[in-house]
Amino acid sequence: MTTHKITFFPHNREIEVEDGTNLIRAAMDAGVHINASCGGEGVCGKCRIVVEQGAVEGGISEMLTAEDRDKGYRLACRSTVVGDASIRVPVESAIDASVLRQQAVPRKTARIQQMDLEDLKEQGLFLPPVEKIYVELPEPDNQDHLPDVTRLVSHLKLNHDEHRLTVSLPVIRKIPDVLREDGFKVTATLARPVMDSGKTEIVNVQPGDTSDRIYGIAMDIGTTTIYGQLIDLKDGAVLAEHGDFNGQISYGEDVISRIVFAEKQGGLERLHKIVVETINGIIGKIVRRAKVDPEDIAAITLAGNTTMTQLLLQINPRYIRRSPYVPASTLYPPIRAVDLGMDLDDHVSALVYPAVSSYVGGDIVAGVMGSGLYLDDRLTLFMDIGTNAEIVIGNRDWLACAACSAGPAFEGGGIKFGMRAAKGAIEDFSLDPATWEPMLMTIGNKRPKGICGSGLIIMTAVMFELGLINNLGKFNRDLTTDRIREDSGVWEYVLAWADETQIDRDITITEIDIENLIRAKGAIFSGCMTLLNEVGMGMADIDRIILAGGFGSYVDLEKAMTIGLLPEIAPAKVTFIGNSSLMGAKMSSLTNRIRRDVVEVTRSMTNFELSETPSYMDNYVAALFLPHTDMGQFPRLEKRLAQRQNGGK
Amino acid sequence: MTTHKITFFPHNREIEVEDGTNLIRAAMDAGVHINASCGGEGVCGKCRIVVEQGAVEGGISEMLTAEDRDKGYRLACRSTVVGDASIRVPVESAIDASVLRQQAVPRKTARIQQMDLEDLKEQGLFLPPVEKIYVELPEPDNQDHLPDVTRLVSHLKLNHDEHRLTVSLPVIRKIPDVLREDGFKVTATLARPVMDSGKTEIVNVQPGDTSDRIYGIAMDIGTTTIYGQLIDLKDGAVLAEHGDFNGQISYGEDVISRIVFAEKQGGLERLHKIVVETINGIIGKIVRRAKVDPEDIAAITLAGNTTMTQLLLQINPRYIRRSPYVPASTLYPPIRAVDLGMDLDDHVSALVYPAVSSYVGGDIVAGVMGSGLYLDDRLTLFMDIGTNAEIVIGNRDWLACAACSAGPAFEGGGIKFGMRAAKGAIEDFSLDPATWEPMLMTIGNKRPKGICGSGLIIMTAVMFELGLINNLGKFNRDLTTDRIREDSGVWEYVLAWADETQIDRDITITEIDIENLIRAKGAIFSGCMTLLNEVGMGMADIDRIILAGGFGSYVDLEKAMTIGLLPEIAPAKVTFIGNSSLMGAKMSSLTNRIRRDVVEVTRSMTNFELSETPSYMDNYVAALFLPHTDMGQFPRLEKRLAQRQNGGK
Repeated sequence: MTTHKITFFPHNREIEVEDGTNLIRAAMDAGVHINASCGGEGVCGKCRIVVEQGAVEGGISEMLTAEDRDKGYRLACRSTVVGDASIRVPVESAIDASVLRQQAVPRKTARIQQMDLEDLKEQGLFLPPVEKIYVELPEPDNQDHLPDVTRLVSHLKLNHDEHRLTVSLPVIRKIPDVLREDGFKVTATLARPVMDSGKTEIVNVQPGDTSDRIYGIAMDIGTTTIYGQLIDLKDGAVLAEHGDFNGQISYGEDVISRIVFAEKQGGLERLHKIVVETINGIIGKIVRRAKVDPEDIAAITLAGNTTMTQLLLQINPRYIRRSPYVPASTLYPPIRAVDLGMDLDDHVSALVYPAVSSYVGGDIVAGVMGSGLYLDDRLTLFMDIGTNAEIVIGNRDWLACAACSAGPAFEGGGIKFGMRAAKGAIEDFSLDPATWEPMLMTIGNKRPKGICGSGLIIMTAVMFELGLINNLGKFNRDLTTDRIREDSGVWEYVLAWADETQIDRDITITEIDIENLIRAKGAIFSGCMTLLNEVGMGMADIDRIILAGGFGSYVDLEKAMTIGLLPEIAPAKVTFIGNSSLMGAKMSSLTNRIRRDVVEVTRSMTNFELSETPSYMDNYVAALFLPHTDMGQFPRLEKRLAQRQNGGK
Repeated sequence: MTTHKITFFPHNREIEVEDGTNLIRAAMDAGVHINASCGGEGVCGKCRIVVEQGAVEGGISEMLTAEDRDKGYRLACRSTVVGDASIRVPVESAIDASVLRQQAVPRKTARIQQMDLEDLKEQGLFLPPVEKIYVELPEPDNQDHLPDVTRLVSHLKLNHDEHRLTVSLPVIRKIPDVLREDGFKVTATLARPVMDSGKTEIVNVQPGDTSDRIYGIAMDIGTTTIYGQLIDLKDGAVLAEHGDFNGQISYGEDVISRIVFAEKQGGLERLHKIVVETINGIIGKIVRRAKVDPEDIAAITLAGNTTMTQLLLQINPRYIRRSPYVPASTLYPPIRAVDLGMDLDDHVSALVYPAVSSYVGGDIVAGVMGSGLYLDDRLTLFMDIGTNAEIVIGNRDWLACAACSAGPAFEGGGIKFGMRAAKGAIEDFSLDPATWEPMLMTIGNKRPKGICGSGLIIMTAVMFELGLINNLGKFNRDLTTDRIREDSGVWEYVLAWADETQIDRDITITEIDIENLIRAKGAIFSGCMTLLNEVGMGMADIDRIILAGGFGSYVDLEKAMTIGLLPEIAPAKVTFIGNSSLMGAKMSSLTNRIRRDVVEVTRSMTNFELSETPSYMDNYVAALFLPHTDMGQFPRLEKRLAQRQNGGK
C-alpha cells in the first residue's frame, strides 16, 4: 500500500497517510485544525488550504475564485492525497498558537489484535476438533464378513492408531452404499472429544478421497446483526463471510423487548424460527460464495449474548429480565445443527458458547477465549461497549466480570441530534480555541445530519480539554461566540448552522447530551473500578485493554481517556479485536483447546451484579465528572490541562 | 391349582393332571395310547374308555349306546377330569403289550426359566440405568444468582453425591418453568452411564415429587410379531404387555422379501415408518392399560434380528442378502426415541440391541444376555428354532454362534398337509404298534385340518421308534395296514380318513414330508455339531440346552431327541425362556450391567458362516438320518430300540 508524507504548516507537522486519503482527514489525524462545518461535502467553503509543494488531486470548487486557485488554494475536504505534499493552513482556516504545540496522536484508534494460527500451533494449542482421514479398505469376501462399520473402525484402529471410536446413526445409514461407491475407498470425518477421556466419533463417510476439504462455520448471533464466516479448517483461512440483520429485530430492538415477545403465546417458537432463518440465509450465502460442497462442512460454532443464545436454543428467556436475573443455563450441550433447524447436513454438530450469567453471555466468553486473555499473565481489561457494556478484568489466574447498563448514548440515543454511525453523522471534530469555530468530519463526507456516539465522545473531550465545558460538562458562559447559546433553558453549542446541514436546522450539542454521555461513561468506568476494588486492585494495575465490538473499532482512544471512559493507559497497550464473538467462534472451530478450557474459564469467571455490589454506587457518583473526581488517575490529562492553563507554555 | 390323580389300566400308569384337563390329553401325557382320529372333536367315536373308579365330567355321546354308557363307557376326548379316577382302556381302543411297558415321560416340554430380579440384586448385577431423585432446592435471590441448571446440578452434587452430570437440551428448555411450578421442588431423572468413566445425564425434570414413578418399555421386533412390555423400573414388574403383527408383513413374510422391498424406491422409508407405526400402536396400548403418565417413561429397549433392526433404524439392509452377507453395523448408538418417530417424550432414549452378524441378530444377543448364558460356567446350547434357526454354544469363557436355514418345515411349510399351529392342526400323536391305528390330538380339539410343526416331529419320532418308518424316513412296506399306501408314486400314512377331517380329504404324512423334516433337523443338528467341532468339542460336552422362541414352548423334548433335532440330554437340563428377545430387552431396561457387558459379549461371539465352514457339509450329510448316522450319540434311544427289537423284553 502506497503512503505519502504530508506536512502541515505553520504547525510543521508531518503525517504519513495512504494514497487516496482525503486531505481534511489527514489534517484531522495529524491533529491540525481546519475550520469546516459541512462534514466534508465541500459546500461550506471554509476549509481552504494552500498546496505549497507537491500536488493533491481535486479540491477545486466554485467556492474558490480563479485567483485563489492560481495561488494554490484548494478546499481540503475535496482534495485527495496522491503524493508527498506540503500544505499550509491559512490563518482564516485555523488556529491559535497553542494548537500548534499540541502533540499529534500517531494512532487514534486501537490497533487490531489478530489471531495467529501459527502461534497457536507453536504453543501446542492447535487441536483440530474435526479431521478427515482417507482410507482404502479391504473388500469383504467369503473369508471376511466384517460388518461395514467394523471394517472401517478396525482399519482406522490398526492403520491410523485411532482408538475409542464411536459411530453416529447417520454414518451407519450411509456406510453400506458409500463404501461400495468407490471400491471401499472412503474418507471418514472424525469429531474429536473435548476431553482425552472422551471418544472420537465418526460423523461422516464420503466415497473417495475428500480429505483436503474440511470446513467449519463460525457465527456471531448479535441482537442486531448476525455474522457468519466459512472457515477452512486446515489452515484457518476465512473463505467467505457475510453479515445480516437479525430477523428478530421486527419483534423488538433490544434483548428486553425480545424477551417480552418470547413470553407471548408462540413467541419463543417464532423468535427461534426467525433467527434460524437469518442464520440459514447467511449459511446459504457463504457456502455459495466459497463454492464448497455443503457435505464438507463439519461443524458450526455460535456465540451470542445469553438472551440470543436462549432464543436460538428455544429456551424460555423469561427469567433473564426478572430479578434476581437467573438464566436457564450457562452451559449448553452440543446439538445437531439440523435439530435447531439449520440447513446443514445431519452430521454437523452445533456448538454454542457457554455464558457466565444473564448479562455476561457467550459473546463475551468467546472474546475472553478468542483473545487469549485467559492464558495471559498481564492484567487485562476487556470491554465490549454498547447499550449494555460488558467488562472482564483478569488474567490467567483469575477473572471477574460484570455487565453495566450504559444507556444508548454511545449509539447516539438520548442525544438531541444523536444518530447511529451512518452517512452524515459527525464522527470527528476539532475546535479552534481562539474562535471556537469547529472542524467537522462526517461519515461519507456528507453535510451533517447528526452526531454519532464516537463523535460525541470526541466533541466532549475536545470541548473539555479546551475549556469550552467544565468538568461537570457545563458550557463556559463567558466565552464570546454565538455558537454557545441557551435554547428553551438548555445550553448548547452550535456545531453546524441550518444552511450547512442536511436537515435545515442548526445541529447542536447540548448540556443534556453531555450529561447523558457522562452518565454512560460513568457507569462503565465505575463498573471497572468496582471489579478492581472487589479484588483489591486499582486502575493503575491494568497492563492492557482489549476493546471488542463495533464501538472499539472507531473510538478515539485519547479522547475516550480524556472524558474518563477508559482509564489512562498508553494507547499502544490498547488493542481492538473486532467482533470478539465471531473471533471466539472461529477459534473454537479451529482448536479443541478452546472447548477444553471454556467450561473451566466460565466457571472461574466471578460475576458481579453491580446493582447489588455496595461499592458500585460510590464509584458511579465519583465518575460523574470529566474525567473523574479523582484527577490523579489521569496524570497525562492533568498535565495537558495544566500546560493549557499556563497559556500553553 | 387343584390337581387330580388319574390311573390308566391295564397299563397301571398314573398321572397327576390339573382339574379340567381333557381325559385324552391326560392319556397322551401319560404315554397311554387310545385310538383317536378326529382330533378330540368326538365324532370318530374311537376313543372309548371305561371309568372304573371316580368320575369324569361329560364323555357321553350318541356314538355310545345306552348299554355302553351304563357300563361306564365314555369318549375320552369329550371327558373332563374333575377328580381322582381309574380309567380302563379297552382292547379295541388300544394296544399291545409292548406299549404297556413304555416309560412315561413326566415332562414333555421344557420347563420355563424365569429371570429373577432378586437374584440379580444379590449378585450385584442390578445397576438401574435410570433413576429419579427428588430435591428441594433453595430459591434464587439477590445474593444467589445461580443459573437454574447449575442450581440443580450443584445441589445433586453436594447433597446426593452425584458427580459428572450433564444436562440435555430438552431439560434446559423445561427447567426454568418446572423449577418455579412447585417452589423449586423437583424430581430429576438421571440416566446412568454404561461405563464408570461416562457421565450421568439429567434427562428430565418434573415439578414436585414423582420419584416413585419410573417406567421403561421393552420391545421385541420380530419379523412376524412385535411384543412390548411396560415395566416398572423400581421392581421389574410388568405392568402391561401387548403383541401385534409387524405391519411390514404386507410387504413380505420373511426378511428376504422385506429386504427386496426396501431396495425399491422409497421402500426403506416405508418399512421404517410402518414398523414404527406398529411400535407406536403397542406403546399406546400398554401405556393406556398400565395407566401411567407417559412422561414417567424413561427409556425403551428394543431387540430384533439384524434385518428388522436395520429397518427400524432406517439403515439400508441391501447387503444382508447378498454374498458375503455383510451387515451395515452390529453396534448401534443410543438414539432419541422421537428421532425414530416413536410416540414418546423427547427425553426418552432408545437402546437397540447389538447384533453379531447378518443372520445372528440382536434378538439372539438379547437371549444370550437375558438368559445369563454369558455369565454361566456350564457349556450351554442356546437355540432359537424357526425358519431360520440361530444357535449359540458356549459359556462365560467363550461363545460361538451360527445361523442355519432350516427351511419352513417346523412351521408346517413344504409339508403336504402342513399348516401353522392353529385350530385343527394335529399337534400330538400316538400309534398302536399292533394295529398301526393312530391317536390324534388337534389344537382346539377340532376335527383335523392339517399337521403343524410340533405334530410332525412327534409323528416322525413315534413312527420311527415303533418301526413304521426306518432311519431314512421310509415306510415299512411290509406292514399290513391300509393306512400305509402309495399315491402317485409317493408313499404315505393316512392320519385321518376324509370323513373324519374338516377338509373332506384323507390327511396323510408322506415320505417327502418326512424327508423335509429330516433335512430341517439335519441342518440344525449339523450346525451345532459344526460349532462344537470347530472348538474341538462334541455333543456330549453340553451341560444344558436353552430353547428360545415360540417353537421351544411346545416342542416335545424326547421326540425332538428321537428324531435327532436336539442332542440327547436329560429333559430336566433343557429350559425354555420364551421370547428371549423381549426378555433380554427387559433385562437391559432394568440393569446397566447388561449394557456394560453386551458390547464385549457380541465381540466375543465367534460367528461361523456355516455355508463356508468345510466341516458343515459332512456334518449335514451325517445328520440326514433318524436320528443320525452315529447312533452312539443317542444312547437312550438306542437302548429303547434294542428293547423293542427284543420283543419289548
